[in-house]
Amino acid sequence: MNDIRDPGAPESPTESPEVEAVGVMSPAFVAQVVGAVGDGDKPFLWRTAKELHPADLADLLEHLPPEAFRKAIHLLGKDLPAEAVAELSDTARLEALHELTDAAVTAMIGHLDSDDASFLLSDLEEDRRARILTKVSATDRAAIESSLAFDEESAGRLMQRAFVAAPVFWTVGQAIDHMRSVAEDDLPETFFEIYIVDPAFRLQGSVPVSRLLRHGREKPLSEIMKETPVHVRPEMDQEEVAYIFRQYNLASAPVVDAAGRLTGMITIDDVVDVIQEEAEEDILALSGVNEAGVNQSVFSAVKARMPWLLLNLVTAFLGSLVVSLFAPVIEQVVALAFLMPVVAGLGGNAGSQSLAVAVRAIAERDLEGQLARRAVRREALTALVNGALIAGVAALIVLLWFQDYRLSLLILVAMAATFMWAGLVGILAPLTLKRLGQDPAVASSVFVLTTIDLMGFFVFLGLASATLL
Amino acid sequence: MNDIRDPGAPESPTESPEVEAVGVMSPAFVAQVVGAVGDGDKPFLWRTAKELHPADLADLLEHLPPEAFRKAIHLLGKDLPAEAVAELSDTARLEALHELTDAAVTAMIGHLDSDDASFLLSDLEEDRRARILTKVSATDRAAIESSLAFDEESAGRLMQRAFVAAPVFWTVGQAIDHMRSVAEDDLPETFFEIYIVDPAFRLQGSVPVSRLLRHGREKPLSEIMKETPVHVRPEMDQEEVAYIFRQYNLASAPVVDAAGRLTGMITIDDVVDVIQEEAEEDILALSGVNEAGVNQSVFSAVKARMPWLLLNLVTAFLGSLVVSLFAPVIEQVVALAFLMPVVAGLGGNAGSQSLAVAVRAIAERDLEGQLARRAVRREALTALVNGALIAGVAALIVLLWFQDYRLSLLILVAMAATFMWAGLVGILAPLTLKRLGQDPAVASSVFVLTTIDLMGFFVFLGLASATLL
Repeated sequence: MNDIRDPGAPESPTESPEVEAVGVMSPAFVAQVVGAVGDGDKPFLWRTAKELHPADLADLLEHLPPEAFRKAIHLLGKDLPAEAVAELSDTARLEALHELTDAAVTAMIGHLDSDDASFLLSDLEEDRRARILTKVSATDRAAIESSLAFDEESAGRLMQRAFVAAPVFWTVGQAIDHMRSVAEDDLPETFFEIYIVDPAFRLQGSVPVSRLLRHGREKPLSEIMKETPVHVRPEMDQEEVAYIFRQYNLASAPVVDAAGRLTGMITIDDVVDVIQEEAEEDILALSGVNEAGVNQSVFSAVKARMPWLLLNLVTAFLGSLVVSLFAPVIEQVVALAFLMPVVAGLGGNAGSQSLAVAVRAIAERDLEGQLARRAVRREALTALVNGALIAGVAALIVLLWFQDYRLSLLILVAMAATFMWAGLVGILAPLTLKRLGQDPAVASSVFVLTTIDLMGFFVFLGLASATLL
Repeated sequence: MNDIRDPGAPESPTESPEVEAVGVMSPAFVAQVVGAVGDGDKPFLWRTAKELHPADLADLLEHLPPEAFRKAIHLLGKDLPAEAVAELSDTARLEALHELTDAAVTAMIGHLDSDDASFLLSDLEEDRRARILTKVSATDRAAIESSLAFDEESAGRLMQRAFVAAPVFWTVGQAIDHMRSVAEDDLPETFFEIYIVDPAFRLQGSVPVSRLLRHGREKPLSEIMKETPVHVRPEMDQEEVAYIFRQYNLASAPVVDAAGRLTGMITIDDVVDVIQEEAEEDILALSGVNEAGVNQSVFSAVKARMPWLLLNLVTAFLGSLVVSLFAPVIEQVVALAFLMPVVAGLGGNAGSQSLAVAVRAIAERDLEGQLARRAVRREALTALVNGALIAGVAALIVLLWFQDYRLSLLILVAMAATFMWAGLVGILAPLTLKRLGQDPAVASSVFVLTTIDLMGFFVFLGLASATLL
């Protein structure tokens, strides 16, 4: 199996005319490819597929209109590099796999590391996957099946089965000779460290490849190996794995089972994707989107956003209900209707701010233990200061506008109270969700903004009916 | 100089009692350290600093109350590992540097790679930095000064000066002998590839260290080297660098100057930090926070959030002004005041959704060229579908609540129009900002939400005065 990540691109895309700038396909080139696809010009497509880096080829394919995309996949068939398919976005990859024959997919599987192979296969319907698995080699099948047995967002899915292990009693020279002697296919294409194991294959430590190179052939591995800072287990959540890579600045990490035996290796490129995904999930969740990709269809975009809109509809009418309780005072003082959105809106803004800070801090594990208590105190103080300042300015504006000191005082108190609430709920809601084992980003946003709206309306209009009527 | 990232942790933190779970400091251990700091127990602190992985030591220090933190830094002095200081959060690092003597900082600088050394020094006031620079070795000074000459978020700041280069005519054996012969200090602690240069030091290609190991000593490097997919230039923005690493799944990349000469190396661990930072910036910017850390003081939290709150105050009063134009119709039909926030709130929610999707897609470069046009079409359609559905449900609720078909029709039209606007402005605003060379996340949020509010009020109340009065 070759590794997906190091296909040894023969051309430097920045110097080739196909790519205008990093990551940008030139429209002229895309048009040329669309033309070639339309003409069924297979030789041109093959050449292009061979010349481009797989990641750039995937970009190019995604830039094609849907019709041309499908035809291009069909024309390329088994000449479509497996690495490019793995680099496609989720929607595009599904469509490409749908377009490809079983034989083409089987050939691709054979070219990929076990983690990438199972990544591709996990997209297929059960029976097609089973059909294809019967056709790959027994070793590959075993590796892929054991990978698929792990949960979708676990370390077991991220790890590859190919790695280099050496017995603890070997020397540098023996390790190098071993790597020179084994077949190309039995080693990962790229690796950054070799793992040192005892006779029961229990992990003892690791030696970075660059360290291996610096020592003489006679040096025992046991003298230059280092312990790994934390043991990654196959059941570990991928978010935990990403945290470990970031915390200890790792390029790769061994995966060991419950008995301490080495079972796989995770490399940084897969972890980078996880880091990106997790950050993206937080951004989208805070804005009430379940999942998204720009290649998404309108149908899936509607599906991803509708639940939150419906929930928000319910909470918005809850707000209306609160406002309706105070109909008499609004009928008397219509200015309240003008100012109501100011109180709720600014409070909502302050709440979003502390929510975003809290969600990020939780993701970075900066809100554990004592740090959480300190953060809550700080958010409360910040809310107090911001609330006082903003409420003061608002009160001044109202005084100048309506020349009514009671209205001005009213907005001062209502806004300060709403800010206080916003600051507290903005940090306490995600912390509580986290403690309950829930994703702090997902449910917080609607809850925080709703309670702030209700609070704002209630305090502002309630005080108004108490003092103005 | 040693590398900051691979300090060869002597202990496995998951197995030591100090760390409860990955990234979580046990309160008992923190309390013990606070006690030791209070007693001025230097030996205990030294032992702890030596035993913990620098990243864990940094975490521990951040968990200390401010007073204990300062005292711990002071007690550790030059025994505080440089790597731990570099791992501290921005605020904590500044404070630690403030607490340390010039001699201690100078010693630390000598232990770090040039990129990390200049990272530390960039935090210091100009005159202190100059004073310390006069004390480090001439080679280190030159490397640090040339690094500091680059812009703060550029590739030049991320790159380190230590790397391994080999002439294109060497063999595998010659390269290995070279690495075995040079002093430990002249090589980076960890590296993943060696760079092949011509006699003018122009980059010809690279050989992954794992590939070097697999070939016999006689193999010419020129036969196993591969071209690098894109050339990173020192002036390149760090976001661009991060994109290249992700696109081509790199673990490290050479940096070349305008003449094609090799000048440095960037490793993935620094890029991972950039990826994390950039995602964090987007999340915070979308919620109207300039920058944040949980170790931030109340003062800096206020400073980071106040500008957006003030801007939002202005736009909120703009909304009030629009509402006030329609005072007569609100006085007649007070129900309008109840429903007004529903129209604006739901529209704002829909706008946030398409904004978050667009900002993420721009960061992932999924909205270039033709893809942008397709995305705008898709957002418009999504807005149409979501708008129709949500407005329909809202109209039904209003009909049941107020038994007034005119009010129900009114909210139907107003909400559908607001959704349409929200969908379009949610994607067009960040795309336009991007095209103008601005950060799409920063200014979009306030602009998008304000125009949606104004639109919602205007359409809803305008239609109301036209039909109900």
